[in-house]
Formats: sequence, C-alpha cells, structure tokens
Amino acid sequence: MQPRVLAIVGVGLIGGSVGLAVRRNGGVRVLGVDCDTTALSRAKQRGIVDEACADLETAAAVADLVLFCTPVDRTVQQVLTAAAKCRAGTILSDVGSTKAAIQRSLHGRLPSRVAFVGGHPLAGSEKQGSESARPDLFRDRVVILTPTADSDAEAVERVSSFWQSIGARVQCMTPEAHDCAVALTSHLPHLVASALASLLPPELAELTAGGFHDTTRVAAGDPQLWSAILDANREEILSVLAPFEHRLRDFRAALDAGDREAVRSLLAAGRDRRSAIRPTA
Amino acid sequence: MQPRVLAIVGVGLIGGSVGLAVRRNGGVRVLGVDCDTTALSRAKQRGIVDEACADLETAAAVADLVLFCTPVDRTVQQVLTAAAKCRAGTILSDVGSTKAAIQRSLHGRLPSRVAFVGGHPLAGSEKQGSESARPDLFRDRVVILTPTADSDAEAVERVSSFWQSIGARVQCMTPEAHDCAVALTSHLPHLVASALASLLPPELAELTAGGFHDTTRVAAGDPQLWSAILDANREEILSVLAPFEHRLRDFRAALDAGDREAVRSLLAAGRDRRSAIRPTA
Repeated sequence: MQPRVLAIVGVGLIGGSVGLAVRRNGGVRVLGVDCDTTALSRAKQRGIVDEACADLETAAAVADLVLFCTPVDRTVQQVLTAAAKCRAGTILSDVGSTKAAIQRSLHGRLPSRVAFVGGHPLAGSEKQGSESARPDLFRDRVVILTPTADSDAEAVERVSSFWQSIGARVQCMTPEAHDCAVALTSHLPHLVASALASLLPPELAELTAGGFHDTTRVAAGDPQLWSAILDANREEILSVLAPFEHRLRDFRAALDAGDREAVRSLLAAGRDRRSAIRPTA
Repeated sequence: MQPRVLAIVGVGLIGGSVGLAVRRNGGVRVLGVDCDTTALSRAKQRGIVDEACADLETAAAVADLVLFCTPVDRTVQQVLTAAAKCRAGTILSDVGSTKAAIQRSLHGRLPSRVAFVGGHPLAGSEKQGSESARPDLFRDRVVILTPTADSDAEAVERVSSFWQSIGARVQCMTPEAHDCAVALTSHLPHLVASALASLLPPELAELTAGGFHDTTRVAAGDPQLWSAILDANREEILSVLAPFEHRLRDFRAALDAGDREAVRSLLAAGRDRRSAIRPTA
C-alpha cells in the first residue's frame, strides 16, 4: 500500500517532517520540490529527501503520491499544475489547515486519471522550515482526511495507510465539518494569541512567565502563512469569534459588578472543558 | 542574611517549592503551616518542611521570616493573626498575585516591631498542591517585591536575599505598577484562556493539538484561587480587557472585509511582540 515514489511539495516544517518519517521507515523514494532552492538543498543535505527537484512537473510525472505541504493559498494552482503531468493512478493529497475552499476550487478540474484527497495533520509548531522538522512529529497525532462524495475510495484508503505508516491516527470527515472544527480548535486560538501578544509593551516582556508564554506561543507563527489560513476560513472563524467575544463580555460584567461567584463560575466552565482534553506526551 | 527559622503558611505548589528549595540549600529550619492537615503531613513526609505546625500563631512566634503562600483573599487576615504573635524583628512576606489591595488593607494595622514586604514570584503552574512542587521552580524566575514609602529597607533587603538564595532574580516596583503589569501579563491571559477553553464542545476535544493545548493550558487552574485574584485586581484587568476586545474587533473587521493584508498586518504585530520575549528554559 506504500507509494514507491513520494513527491513532497514544500519542504518546510511539515513536509520536512514527513520526509524524515518516511525515510526512517525506508522503502520509499522521496523527492523534494521547493521553489526555495536553498531550503531544498539543505533538506537534501539533512537527509530529509532522497532527491531535490527544482521542478514540480518533473517530480509529478514520476511520483505515485504527491503531497502538497504548501501555504493554503498556493495549493490549488500547484495541484492543477502537477495533475496535468501525473501518470494514471497517481494520488495527490495536501496538508492544508483549511479544506473546503481548496476542494471546492479543485472540483471538476482534475484529470480523471488522478485522485485528490484532502488532508490535515493536527501537528505543527510556531517554528518554520525543515531545520525544525522531526521524524516523530505525527506520532499519535490525528490526521483528518476530508473525502467528498466523488472521492476515490481506494485513494482515500491509500492516503490513510500512508499517514498510519508514520504513526498518525486518521479520522475522516467532510471538508465543511473539518473547517468548522478547526476554526474553534486552531484558528480562533491563533487569532486570540496574536491579539494578546500584540498588547505587550516591550518593557513588560521581562515580567512575563509561563502563563503568558504558553497562551501566546502560536502568535510567533508566520503572519503570511496564517493570514492565508484565516482568510480561507474566515466565515467559520467569524462564527466562533462571536461566542468568544460574548464570553469576554460575561467576564467583563462579572468583574464590573464585583460578583466573584460569577467569575468563579465562568472560570469553572473553562477549567471543566480544558480538563476534558486527554493529556498529550 | 538567611532566616534561621522560616515559616511557610500554605504548603501548596508555591509554598512547597519554596520549602524544597530552602531545604536543599540547608541551614534553615522550615516550619510548614496549613489548615489542610492531610496536605501538611504529606509535605512533611516528602521532606518539604522540617516540621508540620497545625497552628499559625505557634509557628509565627518562633519564625524570623513568615512567608504567606495562601490565596490572596486570605492573606490579610492571616498576616494580622500571625503578626500579633511575632517577636520583634520578624519579617512577614507573601507570594500573592495581586499586591495593592493586600498592602492597602494592612496599612497602619501591623505592630511596629514587625515588617511586611509584599512579593510575587512570576512562577507557577496550572497544577496545584505540594505534589507538584519543585526545588527549581524559582530558578532564573523574576520575583517582584513591592515596597512602599513606609517599608523597612532592611526587611526588603532581607526578603530580596532570601529569594536570590533560591535562584530568583528580584525586581522592585510599587504595588500599583505590579498590579498594572500582571493584569496584562498574567490575569488577562488567564481570563482569555478560560473563555477559549469554555467554548470547546467535548466531541472536539480529540481534534485539539498543541495550539489549543498551550493557548488554554492555564485555564486548568483552580477557579477558586483565580476568582479571588481576578476580583482583587478587577479594575486593572478591565483596563487591559478593553484594548484586547478592541484588537478582536480589528480582526473581525479585517476578516469581514476579506482584507487579507490587514489580517497579515495584525498577525505581524502579534508576532513581533511575541518574538521580543527572551526564550525561557
């Protein structure tokens, strides 16, 4: 079920970690594609890929799985470019943080001899680049696949096996259910962390501790990458921003009134939901 | 400059960590006081204190430094109770997350033979109890001391030396400047983390990853403890909640308008401030 030739398009943190994990397992020829040729040759030197390919179409023509680990606003164009050169039976998949917009854009535009399966590993870091890549980044992490009614069942199964082979647990859902879930579990936290971090005057940086550091960690992520994600999922994000703002108003009202029991009750609701999350290693 | 007898009032995470750190250095007799007698005997068993004292007044009468590691809404009453029994020259200090309210309440109510110095170590965890205590909790962490115009300079110096002896860096500022700073660096992040965590439906807990986990980590803290902190510093918190809500409205407007450049610019502001924080070990 494993691909013989895997092309990784975009050898940053995610693509690089896929490369390290696959090469540790062995048995798969890993091609790296990246428009940043310096990043690409570094990835080759570090053993993240077997071969560096400057050209997407060349890699697409020989791969049987092409995995797009590119910013979400570039995925559609790159998938279309690659698909035109793929041999029959090639599977294309991605790791983008939003799914519905990409899959709607691709709908009806791919040659029938290839299959596209949307995917999103729930793993990452505020760090960027293949120098932060780790072969165990996906171990015990959830990878969401988002097949649609017209998805090829065998292709979905093969992409699922691929992720499982590098330690991930796979869940399938619709692209829309995915985008709705991650708006709350990932995109809103990013926006909130960024808003909080932006309020810190430089002279108070010395007076921050673990609470501030953790609450704002993701705000160190790449603004370019994240503005594309937030923009692609903006309707779902606006839908979860509203109840968040409402909850802040509840806190404001309780503090304004000096109603400590109301404050305690709001904090208890947060504590209960937070404590329901299974601790990760 | 070290105390000969240290009484720690409240042997939870902070008090317990102080006990472990002081006993590792040696040369100080450490008394533990706690109304929770089970917690107290566990602390004795774990070597956090030399002696367990059920009674605050007995411990206060023999200590030369009494450190209150109790919830902020209990500190004033306990300091007054202890101070009445202290010998001349005894220093009382605390580790409370808010300072102005406590120090205002104590003003003019302490016997002149004792000195009170407000303090706040910027270290902690969402975990509670002495079972989470660590002797290195204060290593390289900032401890803020908040002397006022009528504080005894020698007492401030002795409390400062005490914290330095267990690895902390000491900064002095007014109680008001402290409360204003931590409203932004600690209390607002706590409130925000809690509001965010409270929105998570149980069925999405499986779909959270590092971003959600870190952004909401502190929400697992004790609601009772934290409602007392937020209530004691509510005016300062409301002052920083306003610009935070304003920043969220900026994000909302940018997303609503589909203005990706505005979103990028907001994220860049957060990234820049976050990146200015010196990484901690």
